[in-house]
Amino acid sequence: MATLPFGDDKRPITTVLIFAAMDSEALPIVEHFKLSRDDGSLFPLSVPWIRYHGSYKDLNINVIYPGKDPEFGINSVGTVPASLVTYASIQALKPDLVINAGTAGAFKVKGACIFDVYLVSDLAFHDRRIPIPGPDRYGVGLRKSFPTPNLVRELSLKVCKLSTGDSLDMCPQDETCILANDATIVDMEGAALAYVCSLMKVPVIFIKGVSNFVDGEKSIPEEFKENLQTTVVAIRKVVAQVVEFINGKCLSEL
Amino acid sequence: MATLPFGDDKRPITTVLIFAAMDSEALPIVEHFKLSRDDGSLFPLSVPWIRYHGSYKDLNINVIYPGKDPEFGINSVGTVPASLVTYASIQALKPDLVINAGTAGAFKVKGACIFDVYLVSDLAFHDRRIPIPGPDRYGVGLRKSFPTPNLVRELSLKVCKLSTGDSLDMCPQDETCILANDATIVDMEGAALAYVCSLMKVPVIFIKGVSNFVDGEKSIPEEFKENLQTTVVAIRKVVAQVVEFINGKCLSEL
Repeated sequence: MATLPFGDDKRPITTVLIFAAMDSEALPIVEHFKLSRDDGSLFPLSVPWIRYHGSYKDLNINVIYPGKDPEFGINSVGTVPASLVTYASIQALKPDLVINAGTAGAFKVKGACIFDVYLVSDLAFHDRRIPIPGPDRYGVGLRKSFPTPNLVRELSLKVCKLSTGDSLDMCPQDETCILANDATIVDMEGAALAYVCSLMKVPVIFIKGVSNFVDGEKSIPEEFKENLQTTVVAIRKVVAQVVEFINGKCLSEL
Repeated sequence: MATLPFGDDKRPITTVLIFAAMDSEALPIVEHFKLSRDDGSLFPLSVPWIRYHGSYKDLNINVIYPGKDPEFGINSVGTVPASLVTYASIQALKPDLVINAGTAGAFKVKGACIFDVYLVSDLAFHDRRIPIPGPDRYGVGLRKSFPTPNLVRELSLKVCKLSTGDSLDMCPQDETCILANDATIVDMEGAALAYVCSLMKVPVIFIKGVSNFVDGEKSIPEEFKENLQTTVVAIRKVVAQVVEFINGKCLSEL
């Protein structure tokens, strides 16, 4: 794993980019910070990507999400849309910090509870199996988030590892890889965001709220749907606390 | 599926963007057209993406590939890097046509042979399982390539459907989805390129050479490695024929 290039950064944080995969995850944060929708000029005309922005104390806050797929009319979840809109937003806005806020599935056996909100330490993929020595590690794509020891201590946040894949269910091969990644929670975007931010040399942190178990008795889609609203409120609360903590600080103070 | 917006396009094709996932797939095409490496100013400084460009007859030809992962030193295969570099290249170069040229695995039972080169009609994902009605179709992401009936007839090309996933192996769940996609060949980028080009409203076609079977006796990585060099030569030959055919024509004549 490469050394993080941001550790000694003493610039004050001014521009924050918050990525969420779905409108239901993004809009509570938009409302909390009273952000305004932009005029659409930031992105190409044909893409469904959405940005809200505004000021909060000393910060310029941007919330972005990939919007509805133009052909299927469905929230553009998953690694590819997340990567594209994050890349385009980093290019356009040059943020000091990216925050990925969203729901996640969790392992009961790892001690997670529904509505828990975690900060993520390590991210990897569980559905990019390339069984050739060398490319196998590229496929897993293990990366660390930006280290924030003061933030973790101050807000008493739980910290865990996250594994990312483009499926909502979990097949046996996925499970094997998730266990190998030592992940407590799983999502459909995180490791892709870590990849893009690593490419673009922007620090990124992850705030993930548990909407469902992946090893519980209930069906994943049903439990996800049932708990979505309460989970996004829990995520919003932690995002608000994190932004409050970040305000007035530089990266090395996080 | 949305109606293709390019069918009545009467502009002459001038700029062609050829995407390959690996240097071993890209460089034979670069050599064939005697292209020059660009100065790197097209993309952000920190990314490993590579572009070669030059003129061939009336065409401005660009070959792009995502390069080596900066952390793992491995070709950046798979859907996320392919999507990012294709998006950035479309933004920068405004191509009239995108061509994805590369290797693929194939089903023996569907009549494919090693070193066959196919043109692709339909593309879908096989590793984005979202078992909720509506999102399930978004996950599969079925899209059509730009229709090229004259090209297919003139060059006597074989045509088939392609299924895309981020793993080189094939787990049972992948196989079920690949069969549901009615795919003869599989790759690790195609459906993602179809997605990005659809978002950006650029026509795209796919030239895929069979390097290995996915239902054969040999191990996929071994057979892939064994046949790679001969497959990329076969792909280069068809890419050259396709570019020759495209030269001087508009999209509606393809």
